[in-house]
Amino acid sequence: MKLGVLTGGGDCPGLNAVIRAVVRKGSVHYEDTFVGFLEGWRGVLENKTIPLDLAAVAGILPRGGTILRTSRTNPAKKPDGLDICVATLQSHGIEALIAIGGDDTLSVAKKLDDRGVKIVGVPKTIDNDLAGTDYTFGFDTAVNIATEAIDRVHTTAEAHNRVMVVEVMGRDAGWIAIHSGIAGGADVILIPEQPFDIDRVADTIRQRHLRGRYFSIVVVAEGAKFSANVAAQHGAPVLQDLGKDEFGHARLGGIGAILAREIERRTGFETRAVVLGHIQRGGSPSAFDRVLATRYGLAAIDMVHHGDFGCMAALRGNSLVSIPLADALSKNRTVGQEMMDVAAGILDVPAQHEQPVGK
Amino acid sequence: MKLGVLTGGGDCPGLNAVIRAVVRKGSVHYEDTFVGFLEGWRGVLENKTIPLDLAAVAGILPRGGTILRTSRTNPAKKPDGLDICVATLQSHGIEALIAIGGDDTLSVAKKLDDRGVKIVGVPKTIDNDLAGTDYTFGFDTAVNIATEAIDRVHTTAEAHNRVMVVEVMGRDAGWIAIHSGIAGGADVILIPEQPFDIDRVADTIRQRHLRGRYFSIVVVAEGAKFSANVAAQHGAPVLQDLGKDEFGHARLGGIGAILAREIERRTGFETRAVVLGHIQRGGSPSAFDRVLATRYGLAAIDMVHHGDFGCMAALRGNSLVSIPLADALSKNRTVGQEMMDVAAGILDVPAQHEQPVGK
Amino acid sequence: MKLGVLTGGGDCPGLNAVIRAVVRKGSVHYEDTFVGFLEGWRGVLENKTIPLDLAAVAGILPRGGTILRTSRTNPAKKPDGLDICVATLQSHGIEALIAIGGDDTLSVAKKLDDRGVKIVGVPKTIDNDLAGTDYTFGFDTAVNIATEAIDRVHTTAEAHNRVMVVEVMGRDAGWIAIHSGIAGGADVILIPEQPFDIDRVADTIRQRHLRGRYFSIVVVAEGAKFSANVAAQHGAPVLQDLGKDEFGHARLGGIGAILAREIERRTGFETRAVVLGHIQRGGSPSAFDRVLATRYGLAAIDMVHHGDFGCMAALRGNSLVSIPLADALSKNRTVGQEMMDVAAGILDVPAQHEQPVGK
Amino acid sequence: MKLGVLTGGGDCPGLNAVIRAVVRKGSVHYEDTFVGFLEGWRGVLENKTIPLDLAAVAGILPRGGTILRTSRTNPAKKPDGLDICVATLQSHGIEALIAIGGDDTLSVAKKLDDRGVKIVGVPKTIDNDLAGTDYTFGFDTAVNIATEAIDRVHTTAEAHNRVMVVEVMGRDAGWIAIHSGIAGGADVILIPEQPFDIDRVADTIRQRHLRGRYFSIVVVAEGAKFSANVAAQHGAPVLQDLGKDEFGHARLGGIGAILAREIERRTGFETRAVVLGHIQRGGSPSAFDRVLATRYGLAAIDMVHHGDFGCMAALRGNSLVSIPLADALSKNRTVGQEMMDVAAGILDVPAQHEQPVGK
Repeated sequence: MKLGVLTGGGDCPGLNAVIRAVVRKGSVHYEDTFVGFLEGWRGVLENKTIPLDLAAVAGILPRGGTILRTSRTNPAKKPDGLDICVATLQSHGIEALIAIGGDDTLSVAKKLDDRGVKIVGVPKTIDNDLAGTDYTFGFDTAVNIATEAIDRVHTTAEAHNRVMVVEVMGRDAGWIAIHSGIAGGADVILIPEQPFDIDRVADTIRQRHLRGRYFSIVVVAEGAKFSANVAAQHGAPVLQDLGKDEFGHARLGGIGAILAREIERRTGFETRAVVLGHIQRGGSPSAFDRVLATRYGLAAIDMVHHGDFGCMAALRGNSLVSIPLADALSKNRTVGQEMMDVAAGILDVPAQHEQPVGK
Repeated sequence: MKLGVLTGGGDCPGLNAVIRAVVRKGSVHYEDTFVGFLEGWRGVLENKTIPLDLAAVAGILPRGGTILRTSRTNPAKKPDGLDICVATLQSHGIEALIAIGGDDTLSVAKKLDDRGVKIVGVPKTIDNDLAGTDYTFGFDTAVNIATEAIDRVHTTAEAHNRVMVVEVMGRDAGWIAIHSGIAGGADVILIPEQPFDIDRVADTIRQRHLRGRYFSIVVVAEGAKFSANVAAQHGAPVLQDLGKDEFGHARLGGIGAILAREIERRTGFETRAVVLGHIQRGGSPSAFDRVLATRYGLAAIDMVHHGDFGCMAALRGNSLVSIPLADALSKNRTVGQEMMDVAAGILDVPAQHEQPVGK
Repeated sequence: MKLGVLTGGGDCPGLNAVIRAVVRKGSVHYEDTFVGFLEGWRGVLENKTIPLDLAAVAGILPRGGTILRTSRTNPAKKPDGLDICVATLQSHGIEALIAIGGDDTLSVAKKLDDRGVKIVGVPKTIDNDLAGTDYTFGFDTAVNIATEAIDRVHTTAEAHNRVMVVEVMGRDAGWIAIHSGIAGGADVILIPEQPFDIDRVADTIRQRHLRGRYFSIVVVAEGAKFSANVAAQHGAPVLQDLGKDEFGHARLGGIGAILAREIERRTGFETRAVVLGHIQRGGSPSAFDRVLATRYGLAAIDMVHHGDFGCMAALRGNSLVSIPLADALSKNRTVGQEMMDVAAGILDVPAQHEQPVGK
Repeated sequence: MKLGVLTGGGDCPGLNAVIRAVVRKGSVHYEDTFVGFLEGWRGVLENKTIPLDLAAVAGILPRGGTILRTSRTNPAKKPDGLDICVATLQSHGIEALIAIGGDDTLSVAKKLDDRGVKIVGVPKTIDNDLAGTDYTFGFDTAVNIATEAIDRVHTTAEAHNRVMVVEVMGRDAGWIAIHSGIAGGADVILIPEQPFDIDRVADTIRQRHLRGRYFSIVVVAEGAKFSANVAAQHGAPVLQDLGKDEFGHARLGGIGAILAREIERRTGFETRAVVLGHIQRGGSPSAFDRVLATRYGLAAIDMVHHGDFGCMAALRGNSLVSIPLADALSKNRTVGQEMMDVAAGILDVPAQHEQPVGK
């Protein structure tokens, strides 16, 4: 078969491993040929392609980024965008398309599927928050990077008797925060799923001090929020507005910086913030992510040859299965009770505290 | 409650994380006190203990090894060994014991359970081959280390047009080999589960050469074996006997070295072996292993307070559950069809080869 | 002899290695005994000490931070501060003191030396900007961390056709920026030594684009400054004032964020900033820093026994030598012509640009 | 100018960084064009080349290996080999050749220089043992890898009360062993420069045991040797002969394995060996090596344009200088008194031992 491949949305370690697996199994086992569309849907809209064969994917397994590059271009938001996509695919004689991306990328895939394009999706979200799949590639790498950063910050916190706030990725779900927080031995973990009471955070840190632990590590997801009543009382949401600039991206005064300020204000303990940002989504994938991404790629090419169109590959337990694209797009997967219980069990808080996560 | 804790068997990244989770949740949530027995069952036999409280476990999460040290001492093999163990535990007023270890350590736990000692087990095997549990801590770290080594060796193989053989751990099961082999982009993966035909290995490498790929990476588990007919024909098993020395340990002429020799003999291509050995089981655990080990520790202390004695914690899907010790000891878990299919799908072999794994 | 040891100023990988070397050689070769003063000069002011012997320094070589903790407390700024220090040292019978720290810590050492206290200094600055010594420990680790971050960011920049700005440490000197920028393959490197013209930075990036390099990496030292004329013209210094908050530390709107905004404004290319911050000064030291820190520690204890008081250890070429404390404090060491030429030679800029560094 | 470039000898992290620096500065600043000869001198002998321009060197800085590949082919050992080389270079119109390699590669460069070929050398030896230059690229990376391995092995040694022997590279010089041994906190370091007395090694380890340090780390360079009298007495050299196989390479029974056996035999302590082998010379270079390799490359292209032919670039202190090829080839640089004193100062040995290094 003649197949198209594209990667859309934010960078994520493992994208190249998916592409490689698709092309290797497709070429060797199914005698497929491939066209690589560049920069996600933009490449389909603007007909930007590269040849994609065994030579093109040689050596890319350990590399971050994506040889097909990526963008957030959404054809559904352009006039005739979807029609142009269908036409481009036809002009190349593409029999089926493998689209690797997150919510937004796959929502376009769904729309093209509705128009009769044969599409298989591969889910991608470094935040690990896609419904329908247990783990997505890239997440393990991000957690490892965040954990290593927390380890580094730990020694400094301890040397200086300081509170260190580490802001990690996670707009809607706290998976990276809760995993890296537990792995890094954080003392407080704050996630979007549970708005937090800043006074209780400060109290936890003060109590550690009383027990002779003169430093504390707070891991906070970028999407964590002050609880409403506290916000009303202390004006915290106003503070958060500092973070917006005219481009809407520079993250001046994000939650990490605000939190550091508010903790220092309440406890009097020297507090510093570190915002990990983009280093969490680049670079060579972990072994776990390389294997997982490879499995997603193999599942996708098999799905093409099984005729599972309008579907995406999903990890369930230890198996890759095929699920309808529509199921995956319906809702976000947030941190569940199981991991909250783990955090509650391991955090160094006195027993009277009932909400150690998102305190 | 007053509880004992010990770690037995080979070193494994994550042991300290388990101990820390047990002691933190036990101390803070259940008001338990702890006695640490040193060097596995030897500490119980010889009554060697250390105090184990919150201060003792502070800062140990990221550290390899075990603060309780370990040994392979088996009380069941000493006269009155089990009786002495029971007596030591009684003398300390130990109400229940948490034993962290592999097959051998847990088999002693089972025997003490039969004598009425209240015991909870935590499985430990870097090879990931324990029946009854999907993943054991330490395995992910070992796979990451092996993968990083394969990455390094890759650049050298390519620069020199060489075949590089990387020998990884795995006596009875090829989990580390197959995961690190896939993650490292190996061209041939040899595992104990499938005795291999050295001539077919050589043939695969020669065919890569014909297609212009002048280097190859072979990942071999230490327990991989030549297939019987080939062994008879070529005398390979005889070669393997070179590996034994008077202490039975120095691994002179292990499978990696033999394989390198036999590949070079057959193909004429320069071939080198690297034996990773002990670096795979030491050092700081990966984030995945820290979280997993923490979860095992929390599950164990909860099991103690739920009265789940004679049982061990086990990972099933994404949940920690309690299973009888006897179930865990009954058989080894070897690499299954799912991962073999992954390897078969991704390995760079012509379609006519039907057994790409363990060829 | 009975000796005191303290560490002052900011955290720096290698502090524990210095302490260990001092105590090991002192204990084993000279039969010295040691008192550890906690938290820099604060420990001397407030008489906070810990025992410091071979057992205390076992296992600390690979660890970041300092077992003696640190602070920025300056006794010279307290009433009778220096007198109190002299008295504390006498009360412990300290015959000589080894002070490990930066400018500020060593300036106190100098003042105590003037009062007759026998003092040997060990220079510490992660920025590598201390006059009198070629390399200081911690710098190599910081450069490795920054380089690894740039590597990660590189893949994302390339995948997204983005400009990525990476802000690294370096208030007065651009050593970390220029080394990590060269090691990470940056396209523009901005350092405090050369105020930069933002329009020329934007121009360089635009020219890369014209040559088909759709991404760029800018490495900027936190102390880099817009050149005066441009600042007057564009109001850039005003923008920089955004960075100050009421605690003077939260780094809202530091140079990295401002630079990203200004580049995007001028080029129209999507630009993102990453501020590495504290992860550069924590965690396990690199091998280079462990050896260097060990050498500094050994030199310091030898200097004590040679009677080289009022002096500090310094690296000159490949040798550790003793230089007067006063010489070290006199001026900062900034990036010299040699490294600027290296950057100028390797940066991917058209030949007509004459000032590729600090453009 | 039209220039040739080649890399010869063993793989070494930083080769790509040298090539990139040569091509970037040559192309951008001098308007040179380049021909890449493949696989060292073999490419010149057999006229195997690739185009070498800015596009070819994009993205190679962080990668191990060499895009020009390498070999140990020596034209001086082939009939008319040198004449063929001269002819090939003329046929391409090569005006000058940059040869990157070790002793052997540069000895050919010297011979071609004698025949009038304009040649500039760049020294390469991961062992850091080339006369005339203070540091060579690749060495720092190798030391970091070895140190990380020692760190890992440390936790296992401690957990098991074991002696661990780590064999690192270094046939004629112990630079990697002494640096990684000091950085990794080894208890005994054995280097080729000082034949060792196995009984004294065993004695040191026994004494540690007596002081309650139940584990020991021995770092040994592959070229370390038993001292003659001991060898005669104990037959140790005979044991070493086990290491040779018919291909002369498989390193069965190298010094690490023999040493482990002899230590266990003498002390009765469980002892294990790890042979790091090829993982020390592959993979991404450290930041230090990337900067150093870049500087060597820039120096080489500048030397070409300054007409410094028959010379090689060398690091002296912090400066790159030009020295005659002949000077570099005259002798090996072995570990000097300075580093031996460092090891002697830091090793955990009782004062009565006078030769702690190479005991």
